[in-house]
Amino acid sequence: MSDLEALPTPALLLDLDRAERNIERMAGRARELGVALRPHVKTHKCLELGRLQLDAGAAGITVSTLDEARAFAAAGFDDLTWAFPVILSRVDECRELAERVTLRLVVDSDVAVDALERTGAAFRVSLKVDCGYHRAGVDPGDPAAVRLVERIAASPTLRFDGLLSHSGHAYKCETTEEIRRVAAAECAVMSGLADRLRGAGIEVPTVSVGSTPACTLADEMPGVTEIRPGNYVFFDYMQVVYGTCSAADTALSVLGSVVSSRPDLGHSVVDAGALALSRDPGPSSAPRPTMGETFESYPAAELSPDLRLVSLSQEHGILSRPLPVGTRVRILPNHSCLTAACFDEYRVVRGDRLLGRWRIHRQRS
Amino acid sequence: MSDLEALPTPALLLDLDRAERNIERMAGRARELGVALRPHVKTHKCLELGRLQLDAGAAGITVSTLDEARAFAAAGFDDLTWAFPVILSRVDECRELAERVTLRLVVDSDVAVDALERTGAAFRVSLKVDCGYHRAGVDPGDPAAVRLVERIAASPTLRFDGLLSHSGHAYKCETTEEIRRVAAAECAVMSGLADRLRGAGIEVPTVSVGSTPACTLADEMPGVTEIRPGNYVFFDYMQVVYGTCSAADTALSVLGSVVSSRPDLGHSVVDAGALALSRDPGPSSAPRPTMGETFESYPAAELSPDLRLVSLSQEHGILSRPLPVGTRVRILPNHSCLTAACFDEYRVVRGDRLLGRWRIHRQRS
Repeated sequence: MSDLEALPTPALLLDLDRAERNIERMAGRARELGVALRPHVKTHKCLELGRLQLDAGAAGITVSTLDEARAFAAAGFDDLTWAFPVILSRVDECRELAERVTLRLVVDSDVAVDALERTGAAFRVSLKVDCGYHRAGVDPGDPAAVRLVERIAASPTLRFDGLLSHSGHAYKCETTEEIRRVAAAECAVMSGLADRLRGAGIEVPTVSVGSTPACTLADEMPGVTEIRPGNYVFFDYMQVVYGTCSAADTALSVLGSVVSSRPDLGHSVVDAGALALSRDPGPSSAPRPTMGETFESYPAAELSPDLRLVSLSQEHGILSRPLPVGTRVRILPNHSCLTAACFDEYRVVRGDRLLGRWRIHRQRS
Repeated sequence: MSDLEALPTPALLLDLDRAERNIERMAGRARELGVALRPHVKTHKCLELGRLQLDAGAAGITVSTLDEARAFAAAGFDDLTWAFPVILSRVDECRELAERVTLRLVVDSDVAVDALERTGAAFRVSLKVDCGYHRAGVDPGDPAAVRLVERIAASPTLRFDGLLSHSGHAYKCETTEEIRRVAAAECAVMSGLADRLRGAGIEVPTVSVGSTPACTLADEMPGVTEIRPGNYVFFDYMQVVYGTCSAADTALSVLGSVVSSRPDLGHSVVDAGALALSRDPGPSSAPRPTMGETFESYPAAELSPDLRLVSLSQEHGILSRPLPVGTRVRILPNHSCLTAACFDEYRVVRGDRLLGRWRIHRQRS
């Protein structure tokens, strides 16, 4: 019996062979592109994976919350970018953390700069730029963007670190060609703004961009100094649909068991629901609606042509076919970042051999 | 300045006045209906709230995972129903737990009965019945249902505890009248099967049903001995839409802050995304698509006519209007059970006074 056959379910499996390949491949991409790599650890929230990324040459890490930042800082990670517009009510926490590590912050408003300046701390601050995703960030064509940078650069306390963007709209593309165009446009916007700032006499140390699709597919990244992809460490079904990876590259899966079967209804129930997979509906461009695909074979990584999760409630997943109670199913989640945040630990595997447990720092205080 | 104005965001607020009222009201409902109340703690995963439910007269608790069961058992809760079809790979964990507390299990297959019998332990076992939700459970009209009960009742080790159903299809109703019909049909199905079993000479100690909509609205529950609602402790926007509560009854909200504002795009960004709210899309019968509504006033509990979350990514929520950076927003989640499972603790409040922190036992090992 393999280790996996006896493992209590649901369990979150981390395929270490694949994760290592993904980490190595993105590190190689960064070298080819001539940019620094600062992986976003919001995907894995795991110290061991962060260390593998640093060992492969990452220049530092990116976090999405201060809880992540503190967990990694406590473990010796000493150069962290919090790639989220500063939360005003957490500025004191930022100051405390910045006394222990290099903490890089991101702003897109005068109000945030006011709050940072009031602390008197020497924060490193980047400008969040909207490169076309239209979520947060300043409009790069708005003269206010340049004025805000001028203000940071002239601040008696703050230090201007550069420009930062996230091409999240790459996740709305239907073809890899479209994703390449998004990546090229992001670079053009960012290097254009950097050039204007330099023309105004402002030093721009960092031009940081990123999204796993753009960083995986871009042919070149002129004017960029740093990339911050996160999802690539695991990939997921979403990335398979986008064409940025194959199912054989995906390193995260949920092992579930059939707990109930109803041939009369044409389905079975598996012990992986919304709190094991998240309720991410996946990409609208998927060939069919799914809350999770399943592997027909592993490690060959054939996805089943017809067995998938058609709906989820809190702890129940509805499989598209009746299967005998006790059948074990390996599920490829739609969105690995949200799935990882459902568990406290990875079960680390090579093939079907269990190596151990790695903690997921998903605390939210 | 109120306690809440200084609180770092995002924060999960538990309005204790409201939760206490909800707990008292459902306890009163159970007394009126002449049934035992065994609240489902999957909604709150919180020892303090479980104790309030017991103090109000609950006969025991219901859990959705063994992690929940262990957390509550360790704190002295000694009568627990795991209302999920037994996971075969966790039968040993069940045995260990059943040595310390009264653990009630649920099955709907011979395979599960086989697994329980193989342990030799004297498990209490209920039959999971499909009362029309069509998720798990046996078809109550299928002769196999009676045969499975006969087998459990005749088992040398197991003890037949009764019947158990969940009217999850109450969440698909469009009117309160429809919900009442679902509740009545659930009672009819369950008491009908119980009567047939008793006619066959089998003792049926418990007939357990439940869903917050059905338990809140049912006029009577003939033949039922126990209800297991969970969501009622908090309610949420979903329940407001279903008409089972008003916004002024909802006891759980997420306090967020605007971190970025884009008047040119007509939106702002708040620090509450998919990992603070879950990605539950809410009921399809909602007046408009929403990933979270907002309170215009509190505690008056007027919902804003136009400020809502239109989309979520991992840590970002997109608000439907531009608001100044730093504005604090109190968000009513679509689905409180999934939202609570995003955090490690409640910030317990009465009005705008902070009382303390209560832990959320969301571990998933």
